[in-house]
Order: sequence, then C-alpha cells, then structure tokens
Amino acid sequence: MTTATTEPVLWTRKHLLGLAELTREEIVHVLDTAESFKEVSTRSVKKVPALRGRVVVNMFFEESTRTRMSFELAAQRLSADVIDFAEKMSSTQKGETLVDTARNIEAMGVDIMVLRHPAAGAAHHLAGAVKCCVVNAGDGQHAHPTQGLLDLFTIRERKGRVEGLNVAIVGDIAHSRVARSDLRGLQKLGAKVTLVGPPTLVPKTFETIGARVTSDFDGVLAEMDVINMLRIQKERMTESGFPSVREYVQFFGMNRERLRRCKPDVLIMHPGPVNRGIELAADVADGPNSSILRQVTNGLAVRMAVLFLCQQAAAGTARDEEP
Amino acid sequence: MTTATTEPVLWTRKHLLGLAELTREEIVHVLDTAESFKEVSTRSVKKVPALRGRVVVNMFFEESTRTRMSFELAAQRLSADVIDFAEKMSSTQKGETLVDTARNIEAMGVDIMVLRHPAAGAAHHLAGAVKCCVVNAGDGQHAHPTQGLLDLFTIRERKGRVEGLNVAIVGDIAHSRVARSDLRGLQKLGAKVTLVGPPTLVPKTFETIGARVTSDFDGVLAEMDVINMLRIQKERMTESGFPSVREYVQFFGMNRERLRRCKPDVLIMHPGPVNRGIELAADVADGPNSSILRQVTNGLAVRMAVLFLCQQAAAGTARDEEP
Amino acid sequence: MTTATTEPVLWTRKHLLGLAELTREEIVHVLDTAESFKEVSTRSVKKVPALRGRVVVNMFFEESTRTRMSFELAAQRLSADVIDFAEKMSSTQKGETLVDTARNIEAMGVDIMVLRHPAAGAAHHLAGAVKCCVVNAGDGQHAHPTQGLLDLFTIRERKGRVEGLNVAIVGDIAHSRVARSDLRGLQKLGAKVTLVGPPTLVPKTFETIGARVTSDFDGVLAEMDVINMLRIQKERMTESGFPSVREYVQFFGMNRERLRRCKPDVLIMHPGPVNRGIELAADVADGPNSSILRQVTNGLAVRMAVLFLCQQAAAGTARDEEP
Repeated sequence: MTTATTEPVLWTRKHLLGLAELTREEIVHVLDTAESFKEVSTRSVKKVPALRGRVVVNMFFEESTRTRMSFELAAQRLSADVIDFAEKMSSTQKGETLVDTARNIEAMGVDIMVLRHPAAGAAHHLAGAVKCCVVNAGDGQHAHPTQGLLDLFTIRERKGRVEGLNVAIVGDIAHSRVARSDLRGLQKLGAKVTLVGPPTLVPKTFETIGARVTSDFDGVLAEMDVINMLRIQKERMTESGFPSVREYVQFFGMNRERLRRCKPDVLIMHPGPVNRGIELAADVADGPNSSILRQVTNGLAVRMAVLFLCQQAAAGTARDEEP
Repeated sequence: MTTATTEPVLWTRKHLLGLAELTREEIVHVLDTAESFKEVSTRSVKKVPALRGRVVVNMFFEESTRTRMSFELAAQRLSADVIDFAEKMSSTQKGETLVDTARNIEAMGVDIMVLRHPAAGAAHHLAGAVKCCVVNAGDGQHAHPTQGLLDLFTIRERKGRVEGLNVAIVGDIAHSRVARSDLRGLQKLGAKVTLVGPPTLVPKTFETIGARVTSDFDGVLAEMDVINMLRIQKERMTESGFPSVREYVQFFGMNRERLRRCKPDVLIMHPGPVNRGIELAADVADGPNSSILRQVTNGLAVRMAVLFLCQQAAAGTARDEEP
Repeated sequence: MTTATTEPVLWTRKHLLGLAELTREEIVHVLDTAESFKEVSTRSVKKVPALRGRVVVNMFFEESTRTRMSFELAAQRLSADVIDFAEKMSSTQKGETLVDTARNIEAMGVDIMVLRHPAAGAAHHLAGAVKCCVVNAGDGQHAHPTQGLLDLFTIRERKGRVEGLNVAIVGDIAHSRVARSDLRGLQKLGAKVTLVGPPTLVPKTFETIGARVTSDFDGVLAEMDVINMLRIQKERMTESGFPSVREYVQFFGMNRERLRRCKPDVLIMHPGPVNRGIELAADVADGPNSSILRQVTNGLAVRMAVLFLCQQAAAGTARDEEP
C-alpha cells in the first residue's frame, strides 16, 4: 500500500453510487487500494481473507457478462461468498418492487448488493432502503462508477498521472453512463476532457460542466494523450439522430490512419465489448496503444478495492488495513 | 444450544419430506437447533465448518428466488459447496425422468438434494430412489416443510410459545402447500388453527383433521394471536371458484381497519412475496405487527438446521454437537 | 498413487484438447492420477487444496447439465473457485468472437477454461489464443476427451485392463464425438474396437484407422467384452439416412435378449442420458452389467485429474505430487 499507516481514515462510505459525489482524495484512495489488490491477482493462490464469511449478491436486472463476472471474481478473491440474483428467475416478475426484493434479500444476511439496473437512480434508491452496502454496477444512463475508476486506474498506470492529460471520449455520449462516470472522475483528477461525436449524440450542455464538446474528431486527434472509444449500440443505430454505421466509421471510427496522426504513445481505451471494424479497427484494438485487456484486468482490482472499502466502512472499522 | 448434551439423539432422519411425519419433539429439536444457528448469522464471519467438503445440490424444477437463495446461503454458511441444477438447462428436457436425473447427480458424490417440484409427492419419490439426503423445498400442493418450520420458529420467537395460540391462515388454502405444512406443524405444537377464505378455496374437509374452517374473517379477527396471510396467485384469479381481486380484498385483505380490530400484539405473517394492496396492505406489511422480514431471516437459520441435522443423521453420527 | 516418485514427469501439457495427440503413457498417467483422486470423493470432507486460489471458468456454448456439473464439482473438490460463463447471457450475442470473449475472461485472471462448443476445432482454436489452460469438454463432432478417459478408466477398473479387450461402440458413430474419443483412447491402450450401426451412420472410412465396421450387431455380440451404447439423438431421427426408432431398436437396441447372447461379464456402457427403451432397455441399464452410474462417478475423478495435471503443467511445476 502506498498510503502511510498514520494517515487518517480516507474512506467512510458504505455505498459506491457514483463518482460525482466523491472527492479527489477518495478517488485516489480507491486507486491506491486497488493497486495493492492488483498484486493479489498475480499470485498463484489468488485469494485474501479480507471478506471471509461476508456475502455479496450480484443483482443484475440488465445482463452484462463482463461486469457480473468481474464482480463475482473480485468477491471470490476476497474470500466472500457470492450469490446471484437473476431477474429472469425472480419474484420481481410477480410484481414485487426492487425495494421489496432487496429488503427480502437483505433479511437473509447479505453484506453487499451489487446492482445493475436499467433505471437511472436505482442504486441511490436502493441505498436509501437497505442497511447493507450498495455498489452501483451501472444504472440506466446515469453512472457506472467502477468503470470510471478502472479507466482512471488504467490511465494512471500507463501514463503515471491523470492530471493535465488531454482525454477524448468518443461516441454516443448522450446515452452513455460510462462517459458520465469517466467525465466526472477525470475532471476530479484534473484531466481536460473533450467529448467527441455527432452533434445529436453529444449535447452542448456538457460544456456547462466544463467539458469541451466537438464533432470534429480529426481536428482534436493530435493533442490527445488518451482516447476512449465508446461502444456503439447497433440496436440504437436505427433511431433518428443516429448516423448510419458507414458514416459513423468514417467520421468517428478509430483506425490505423487516425492512429498515425495521434501522439505515438496515445492510449486507446474501450469499455468492451468492441464492435471490431466499427468504433475500433481490429488492428488498433489488438495493437500496442490499446489498453483494452489491461482495463479488464484492472477492473477486477478496482472492484476488489470497492467491495473491501465499502464493507470496511459499513463494519465501522474503516481502518487502513493492509489487504 | 438449549438442549443438554446428555440428552438422547433427537433427530435420526436423513430426509425432511413433510411435517406430518414428524413428532412434536423432532419439530422442537429443529427449532432449537435453528436457534443456535441464528446466532451464526449475526457474526461478522457468518460461517461454521459443519458441512465443509459436503455438497448440496439445489434442484428447482419450479422457480422460487427466495427459497433457492435461502437454501444456497444456508449451505454456504455451513461451509458446504452448493451446486445448482436448473431444469431449463437440463437433460430432463431430453426425456429423462426425475429419478434418472437424480441418480446421475448422486453418482457425482452429492450429499444433500434440495428439491422443489411441481408434483405432489416428488420428494418422497426421490427419497425412495437415492441414498443421499432429500430436503423437500416444496412439492406441488403437498408440503413445504421448511416454510412451516420457519413460521413456527417465528411464532415461538415472537410469542414465546406456540401451544395454546389462536392462529388463522387466510387465503387459498385448497391450493397451498404452505397452509398444509403450517397446519400440520401448528397442530403438533398445540396451536388452535382457523382456516379462513372463500368457501370454494377452503374445503370443509379440513375440519376432519381438527382445523376450524370459516369464511367470516371479520368474525374471528379479535381472537387471533397470529394471522398468516397467504399469497394470492393472481394467475389463478380467472379460474372458476375464485372471487375477483376486488371482492377478495374486501372480505379477506388485511388492512389498517382490520388490524385495529385485532389484539394489539397480533402477529401478521406472510410467506412472501407480498401482493401489496391485495392480501396485505402496504402499511400493515411494513408495520410493527408484521414479521415478514423476520420470517426470511429465520428461514435461513431453519434451513441451516435442517441441512445440518439431515446430514448428521445420514453420516450416522447424529450426535448432538454444538454447531 | 501407483507411479513411483522417482519417475520422470509424465504430463507436460497445459491443455487437454483430444486423445489423438496423447501417448499411451500420458493416458495411463491421467488414469492413475484419477485413481488417487477417486479416493477423495469417498471421504466425508471431499476436498483437497490442490487448486486453492485458482479459477476455473466453465464456458458452455452448448448445454450439457452433466458435463458442466461434473467439471464444476471436480473443480470445487480441488478447492478451486468456479465461475460460469453462460452463452445465453453473454456478449457473444453482441457479435464478439469466441477468442475476444475468451481473452477478456482470461484478463480477469482465469487459470483454466473448460470449453464446450458446437464447432469442431473450437478448443484447439482457443488454446492457440490464450495463455491459460484449455480443457475440451466437447467440440462439435470432433472430440470429448474427458468422456473418452472416463470410459477407459471404467473399463480398466471393471476389467482390470484395456489391452486386448473386444469393445463395440454402437450407434450414430458418424456424428459422435464420444465415439471418436473412445476409439482413439481404446486403440492407444490396445483394445480391439468394432463400430456398429446402420451403414449410413458408420462410415467405412473408419476402417482406415484400424477399427472394424459392421452393421450386424447380433453377429458380433458374443465376442464382446465391452459394449458402449451411444445415445440416439431423437431430433436427428427425421433426417435422411436415419432409420426409424422402431427399426433402430430392432437392430441396434441393447435388451435382455441380446444381453443373454453376450459374455456373462460383458460391460454395458452408455455416456448418458439414456433413452430408456431405445438404445438401451431399462432393465439392462439398471442391471449388474451396466456401468452407467459408475461412469458418472469416475467422470468426476478423471476431470479432477485433468484439471490438476493441466494446471500443474501450466504452473511449470509438473512434479508428480501426491494429490
């Protein structure tokens, strides 16, 4: 751990709902904690007893293989028991509300609820209704804080810092919780954020919270230290306001030609899964500038840190223990 | 544990199939064992090694989020490995019978099968075909013994006793395995049971086994110590013999007005999930007389006790160990 | 363990993709290792710490309850963490390729991928793309090596040897990965294999790799030491080239009459699940010559051995440790 043991308690939250409400110091503390957990994953016995006898429930009301697996593996690595609540098999189909369902699950002695939900604000709503920890694993178009944190972690790891970097987020900003969480986190840590995409998908209102907005990807390529390519939801491509796939690739796709006009050490990020040949050409996705798989690896360490810190805070023993 | 260590062995069954076949002493022993396990769930490390290296398989041929999660968590808390057999993904679709499927699973070294099945008698059938333990988690309209036990546990915990209490079970008694298991258990422990509901749903034949039967809910309210409101299956409401939802609520719904006419310390129970505003008004469900979430919590302790006792009996070492 | 500790390393493969590429010595080493693991399953605490802190992911793109459960239980028994990747809930639906999906899962720190896939060659393809271990749990009509190994294990256990035995494999050989893996394994260990079935389902080309091919089941019954009845895919029965179910039963079904004409100690095998009354009569399936449930039990031991040996080889410490 990079923090000194005499330091004051840096994390007192039992929920992680979004990055907007975190201080710069809190974010840095999560990243520092994740750094020490990342080492655990390199051991042959990839386990620490930090959450032994604790129960983590994955409540995914929207499917996401990667995020669900990442949280499950993170919890296992902390020696927690993990249980899955899959909507399709649940009594919410019988008309129960989210809160009713959650209170029932909580009554079984759950310590942490990891919630993925299609409604923005669902995690906040849940946190107000239960006594256990709530970790937001994506709520509608609102926030996806662990994605934001793992992106910050990856940038810091590869660039040595976040402050002062020029970071572009490219794609359907309007509908993206990843973009929102990245933007919040990057701003707190002092990066300069440019949002890039078709005008219909990148509202000018983002300028009011300090982001630069542009639809001229080629015009900003050369100044960027980091370019985060969002996944295009092909199912949304037929909606009005959306360009065709061909147009999108032409103006906003990252490919070899565009990469050549970037800084040589530009970091190309993507939250996955990649639409190869659409927002990201296959050779760039697999090339040396890409951090895609590293983001996945770091996601696990960040989620271990979040589960650990929230549980520690809930247990009222938020001491700065070595994991 | 409340039982003395010099006591004789009180549990020798390797299966729990129903409450009808249990003695009063056996039921009390499960409740006593559950009491000691309930304490485990209040610890920060919610685990005891009682079933370490044992395998529990959840075989749910009917979906039930709560019951399945409750058994899974109970098994985890006893340090067992839990594996899920989900019908939808199974070879029973290829025409295999339940027994064939179960024998194959048993051949993999399973210790306890937890069975939920739409056919009444399925658990008995299974118990006759395998050597491992079978725990009935609900078979058709026949029995749901762990629900019965957790209801008894909750009544005893809140009322200090079961004997001599006036208990009403309200709803679609005819089609309810919960009602049947509650009735059997309550009678064994000396409660006086009144079955309440529309005449089409509460057959007079229940009188032959000692229950009072009435369709006049309001007429019996004042004498009740416990009122157990069954869940109404809305999907059945269109069948003949069923009143409309509006009629049902009017005559059999528990609400603030009816609660006012009950004893002040009446215990309002519900097996969940609640149809708020139908069999139970939201304010009563969430009020101080309600034991709904406590039932969920107790369900875990009762299931730990059942898994532990059956496994112990199967292992031929049914000593009265401290859990 | 039957091998001496001074012996050289007998297993250096981190993948198990098929039996065709294994030497006789390698196959025997897996069987010997499985023998020592089989003992573990008879203990009351059915666990060894061999893979503690390791992660096994079950990637099943084709459903198979038994094989998936068998691998999950095998991994649990080795104290590994097991995680399930279910196709239906996955991003492969979003157009990702198998390799992309697998690389993402690998980036989360997985040690062993167990792959079931409808495409022949999928496991080889995957093994070429990831650094972790790959165990083939069935790829199209190509191979199902752990089934082949458990069949060899069962024959050796019941007959004391494999060499020199007359083994018939009966059914739809052309479309069966089980038949292919059994054939390869049996030949390596010196058995004489006869493939039996309708001419349309047992291509003469199998003769070029040393198998006898016949459609006269009754003509070869008397000489067989082992008869392996393949499962008939009823869904394929309507295709051209397939006999009717009635014809199939008449010429290729194993029943009491045919059993009477076999050697008294003939071993009747079936990979399960059995179509009772079609390829195998119920009384034969449940009779003393049948090894069906024993195969299931042995499958677990064989899969423990395979997971253990591949992981050990991957860890670069392929010492011949006592499990």
